[in-house]
Amino acid sequence: MRKEIKLAGFGGQGIVLMGVMLAEAAGYYENMEIAQTQSYGPEARGGACRAEVVISDEMIDYTKTLNADVFVAMSQPALDRYLPEINPETAAVFVDEMLVTAVPETVRHLYRIPATRLAEEQCGSRMAANTVMLAAVVQKTGIISLEALSRTIRERLAPRLRDINLKALEITLAYLSGGDTHETL
Amino acid sequence: MRKEIKLAGFGGQGIVLMGVMLAEAAGYYENMEIAQTQSYGPEARGGACRAEVVISDEMIDYTKTLNADVFVAMSQPALDRYLPEINPETAAVFVDEMLVTAVPETVRHLYRIPATRLAEEQCGSRMAANTVMLAAVVQKTGIISLEALSRTIRERLAPRLRDINLKALEITLAYLSGGDTHETL
Repeated sequence: MRKEIKLAGFGGQGIVLMGVMLAEAAGYYENMEIAQTQSYGPEARGGACRAEVVISDEMIDYTKTLNADVFVAMSQPALDRYLPEINPETAAVFVDEMLVTAVPETVRHLYRIPATRLAEEQCGSRMAANTVMLAAVVQKTGIISLEALSRTIRERLAPRLRDINLKALEITLAYLSGGDTHETL
Repeated sequence: MRKEIKLAGFGGQGIVLMGVMLAEAAGYYENMEIAQTQSYGPEARGGACRAEVVISDEMIDYTKTLNADVFVAMSQPALDRYLPEINPETAAVFVDEMLVTAVPETVRHLYRIPATRLAEEQCGSRMAANTVMLAAVVQKTGIISLEALSRTIRERLAPRLRDINLKALEITLAYLSGGDTHETL
């Protein structure tokens, strides 16, 4: 079992933290082997930012994603840049509904999640958009358990981040259970 | 200009944080492109842990280390496992003096740093051994500036980590200026 997740957006959206949380959730609470990569440039606070997580039940020799099972794009440039590396037939593609408007029709499993809007309206901060998106990915794909994600937020994050992230998790689950996910499956 | 650093040890030594600090120092304060990878398993709190940092003045396509310029081993198993991936003629190899006792003679540029001992005796905590080692690497190789490392500690770390890490930086520089680095160059 090898699962690969690619996350991309602009700096300041918490893309790296999303990767770290996913990796720690799987590594600490689901007993998996983990490889996690982030890359960014000097324009990190506003430019392109990418994180990758490989989760496996065996030792991981190759730490990069080869064939992502999940791809998250938090900006249009991120989608445009990394979609060519993804298999549009098989990957589950998650985009921020507000920030990514043009998605090629070749993408078969598309989830439009209003991550930034929900974070702003219901958590009072855009900063929580990364956790809203991560919660949606976990809920929709089961790539890790919700319990592992919740424990990671409670046990690994600094206190000032904990509450807003737990709130983000909660509002996302409430939103998704409302059935309004704009899936095109 | 592409510089590659490989860091390895056991879980709990702060290997991942060492990689993150080095990457952020170069990315935020030295205007470089960064790729940073960590990998670990379910036994992360005691087992093998590895982090890699690639620093470049150009976009980084290949995020893994191909030919590490710097290799840090904080445990004997880490040295034994990763040394075969290193060029012993060209890489600067840093080992914890107390925890790594057997280093093959093929290693040409070897620095034995008493990171754990200094952290324990002069910072009051083994937890600071990672910063002692990082400070020694930066001082000896110039791979980033001391100023960038110091700013990273001051501006990026949580307050409770800041003071002990600044202290670790200070005692390392004092130690190294004493000329007692056990270099075999």
